[in-house]
Amino acid sequence: MSNNTLRLEGIYPPIPTPFDAKGHVATKALTGNLRIWNRYELRGYVVLGSNGELVLLNDQERLRVLEVARAAIPADKLMIAGTGCQSTLQTIELTKQAAEIGADAALVVSPFYYKGQMTSGVLIEHFHRVADASPIPVIIYNMPACTGIDLDATTVTAIAEHENILAIKDSGGSLAKMAEIHRLAPLSFQLLAGSASFLLPALLMGAVGGVLALANVAPHQCLAIRQHFIDGELDEARHLQEKVLPVNAAVTRGWGVPALKAAMEMLGMYGGLPRAPLLPLSEDKKEDLRCILQEAELSALG
Amino acid sequence: MSNNTLRLEGIYPPIPTPFDAKGHVATKALTGNLRIWNRYELRGYVVLGSNGELVLLNDQERLRVLEVARAAIPADKLMIAGTGCQSTLQTIELTKQAAEIGADAALVVSPFYYKGQMTSGVLIEHFHRVADASPIPVIIYNMPACTGIDLDATTVTAIAEHENILAIKDSGGSLAKMAEIHRLAPLSFQLLAGSASFLLPALLMGAVGGVLALANVAPHQCLAIRQHFIDGELDEARHLQEKVLPVNAAVTRGWGVPALKAAMEMLGMYGGLPRAPLLPLSEDKKEDLRCILQEAELSALG
Amino acid sequence: MSNNTLRLEGIYPPIPTPFDAKGHVATKALTGNLRIWNRYELRGYVVLGSNGELVLLNDQERLRVLEVARAAIPADKLMIAGTGCQSTLQTIELTKQAAEIGADAALVVSPFYYKGQMTSGVLIEHFHRVADASPIPVIIYNMPACTGIDLDATTVTAIAEHENILAIKDSGGSLAKMAEIHRLAPLSFQLLAGSASFLLPALLMGAVGGVLALANVAPHQCLAIRQHFIDGELDEARHLQEKVLPVNAAVTRGWGVPALKAAMEMLGMYGGLPRAPLLPLSEDKKEDLRCILQEAELSALG
Amino acid sequence: MSNNTLRLEGIYPPIPTPFDAKGHVATKALTGNLRIWNRYELRGYVVLGSNGELVLLNDQERLRVLEVARAAIPADKLMIAGTGCQSTLQTIELTKQAAEIGADAALVVSPFYYKGQMTSGVLIEHFHRVADASPIPVIIYNMPACTGIDLDATTVTAIAEHENILAIKDSGGSLAKMAEIHRLAPLSFQLLAGSASFLLPALLMGAVGGVLALANVAPHQCLAIRQHFIDGELDEARHLQEKVLPVNAAVTRGWGVPALKAAMEMLGMYGGLPRAPLLPLSEDKKEDLRCILQEAELSALG
Repeated sequence: MSNNTLRLEGIYPPIPTPFDAKGHVATKALTGNLRIWNRYELRGYVVLGSNGELVLLNDQERLRVLEVARAAIPADKLMIAGTGCQSTLQTIELTKQAAEIGADAALVVSPFYYKGQMTSGVLIEHFHRVADASPIPVIIYNMPACTGIDLDATTVTAIAEHENILAIKDSGGSLAKMAEIHRLAPLSFQLLAGSASFLLPALLMGAVGGVLALANVAPHQCLAIRQHFIDGELDEARHLQEKVLPVNAAVTRGWGVPALKAAMEMLGMYGGLPRAPLLPLSEDKKEDLRCILQEAELSALG
Repeated sequence: MSNNTLRLEGIYPPIPTPFDAKGHVATKALTGNLRIWNRYELRGYVVLGSNGELVLLNDQERLRVLEVARAAIPADKLMIAGTGCQSTLQTIELTKQAAEIGADAALVVSPFYYKGQMTSGVLIEHFHRVADASPIPVIIYNMPACTGIDLDATTVTAIAEHENILAIKDSGGSLAKMAEIHRLAPLSFQLLAGSASFLLPALLMGAVGGVLALANVAPHQCLAIRQHFIDGELDEARHLQEKVLPVNAAVTRGWGVPALKAAMEMLGMYGGLPRAPLLPLSEDKKEDLRCILQEAELSALG
Repeated sequence: MSNNTLRLEGIYPPIPTPFDAKGHVATKALTGNLRIWNRYELRGYVVLGSNGELVLLNDQERLRVLEVARAAIPADKLMIAGTGCQSTLQTIELTKQAAEIGADAALVVSPFYYKGQMTSGVLIEHFHRVADASPIPVIIYNMPACTGIDLDATTVTAIAEHENILAIKDSGGSLAKMAEIHRLAPLSFQLLAGSASFLLPALLMGAVGGVLALANVAPHQCLAIRQHFIDGELDEARHLQEKVLPVNAAVTRGWGVPALKAAMEMLGMYGGLPRAPLLPLSEDKKEDLRCILQEAELSALG
Repeated sequence: MSNNTLRLEGIYPPIPTPFDAKGHVATKALTGNLRIWNRYELRGYVVLGSNGELVLLNDQERLRVLEVARAAIPADKLMIAGTGCQSTLQTIELTKQAAEIGADAALVVSPFYYKGQMTSGVLIEHFHRVADASPIPVIIYNMPACTGIDLDATTVTAIAEHENILAIKDSGGSLAKMAEIHRLAPLSFQLLAGSASFLLPALLMGAVGGVLALANVAPHQCLAIRQHFIDGELDEARHLQEKVLPVNAAVTRGWGVPALKAAMEMLGMYGGLPRAPLLPLSEDKKEDLRCILQEAELSALG
């Protein structure tokens, strides 16, 4: 039976999948990185999200990454597995496999290839079928920058009526929409900010936490923004959020996964190369990135 | 000399321009409406904004509306005049006329017809020429839903370096961008939320207030959201913000100026008809609107 | 009574409005340019279109440009006046004034500022009111690159049912849509390509001609493309069309009106400066433009 | 060695993948459908394109469909296999497998998930790596409606410089862009229209044929449009193209694959259900579709 009372409060890095020089999944590096992140008060991890290059992995690799990650993630931290595929059936299969491996919840991106046919009704039906079949709670993943589809509040609310739909990770960035979802969805439905660039205002509007690429390289700062907010220290929270904005921009919409991996390398973790078609960050941009990290006073993690 | 230390903290309704049955500007209705709004602790008004149907008025009507409004606005409340035209020269002329009539500041929408040519450099040059020539401080108006142009943080920050550029009214709704502008712009540069749908998170990220269509029909609630925020009553603030969301949606992106005028009529003020091509709200939608106002417990103003 | 049987077959340059060094309308230059264009078999001219900087002219200037142009345009060539404003009323007024000055037809861009409210019904109503009031036939102007609104085939067809709606100038570039309009609209309804970049395929799909920025600097080539098509010389037509593509791109979506004016100057006509916010073409880009003109073997007109 | 002189002139249906009542690939139905299409002078087939629901099939199913299709496609007709995945490596693997099964060329959609990183350079590198490794010629697949990425002419031309890049199937619909590609790319580079909605103008601008969803249900008409064009019967070509526009709209951007399968069923072929998240066409829409087929005078194929 699904644990639909799972509480998600907290910060989650959507961890990258490390590759070795030959391009294979570097399982030891994955374990090593998790050991470092485990030192922080992170609530858990998203494995196989957009930053985990889910769409660039084959079926075997996906399961292997989940297994290795689960072994390295303590029982008191959540493992949220990215399991959204274009096909409803494949999404269900991957979700079941993830559950078997020990994932606590599944993060399911909206299908998007047949954009013209992805009406509200089609999307609701897809998520409900997945939720029906899933042994673990399902988190809706709204990621318009990658999918070209931006779920509206009405659709999200309708999806949320299913008891096995636990939350939404919204990377769209519309606070008005987050407020509308918070107003309309069941009380138990949880909101997670999908980017550190709007973590603080999202918390104010009712989000319980965030899945933040930035948390891979600045876990301390992401946790501190949330703690300041909880403690009512709004000025400190805002100051910190503003300070990390340039790093966040660099490792997300700016230069993406290649920059995230480069930044991890600079901070003493295993970064490695992204998988093609993604190309490694150029030397010029690496220099820029180094400056951005320094200005934000990020310190080594590893 | 321009008053570039003008403090904008507070709430501003961008007031509609009332027309009589023949379609002429209804000056008495304008005065009457302002008398009602003057009872509230509003910081001032935007006259000739998007909701003021600026683009549908001829030159004479624009000046007449400003004169009538100024006469009805007490000296301790600000009159911000919408003066942005496609042409730099016409913008400057209207800004000077507005200043002469007594406007405290000019709200200048980014020019947008020649979108392909509206590079960052062209926009900066435009705003700086206007600011050079303007006897009153200039507020940047970013309104992507109408203009199809969304000023980025770098461009805004460059424009803001001019000493006669006072603030930005941002209707785009990206809190990440507002945070970025707050981080980069001069300390004296002020941010105003352009919609009640994100007033509260905008205040958190450093906005000093808002220019809110909703404030025309729910001035008390808009003021209360801000006051709760100032008093650290975040839950009350969020609760109130969520409650008014449907009204805000109806009178802005949903049904626009026709709905705003219909709502004012329902609340005891002068609404009247919009000017063509805008058409009056249909009877069906009026019925829906009435329900929305009731559910939000808006009470008569007039 | 309106001449709704006016036949539009042919090529029309949407002529730029020349300004003198002080920024005033340069009426002699306008006359001089028209004398040069009059030597070609152009069917007529669009005066006060997007390239005529309509939105940057004040009311007096608009009428002056129409008067000067009409005096310089022979009776056997058509003068189509751009008269579309945001307001239905102002559009009607300018259309009537243009008719009085001698315009043969009015080119009316869809209103677009209140994008959210510009439903199909609102747009149909607008165009029908204008057509009702206009003493001259009305041509719909679909210009998504500037307006952010792309009229669909169904809306255009509904507008076209009015007997005083003569044609559409479509700058959107979807041949599928042009075919759909050709299929659905009354037989008498005429289509004009809005850009030389798709003149030839548009002629194939039923367009009777084009309003082409390129025709200002390459009237001979634009006429020849059409003549080759009429004569069934499709290869020659395509070859010529491909040859002028780079010039067309430069003076339209690439660098816009500033480049069009610079190119005219290079070809012996009066170009002059664009009006701010548009800025003159930089020296670097002028050099590029010169090369583009040479490669396309454009020869001096003046 | 790759056959980079393969001539693509002609019409190709991108065939749907049939599923049985249990949702499994219906191999006999696939063979049966191909037997019917084989009666027409089609140049070949695209197997595993967007209409083949490539993104909804697992690895085994993809190979099975290719094998069954190849067995049913005569040697004198081309089998073009859709092999584009998000990952460069997976694209190469699937391309090699398709080649081994007997595909004549590979249709490779641009990767698109990491939109922000899909710069011109990244896309060129991706296609060149695939072309380097592919034993069969590669056709670029530009499909902005599904991918959210619209390859520009400069990028396409740069990709086309590789000797194993044979052609582009462009579903974007910009004839100006097709003309630009035709002007800039190597003489041997071939263009295919990606939709029947602009087949005729594309042929005029240099396309050698088309990959047309419509050709699944109206092969005769699609072939006739091309033949009329070749014979210089432009009016007949245009008339026919206009006539089939509504059918094309219904089975593509209107209602997509579900409508294509329903239309096939109505015309005596095997249609079957689409795979979830795609849902079967509703009864109401089926009724509309039936009328559309009748008005276009489509006759049974099976």
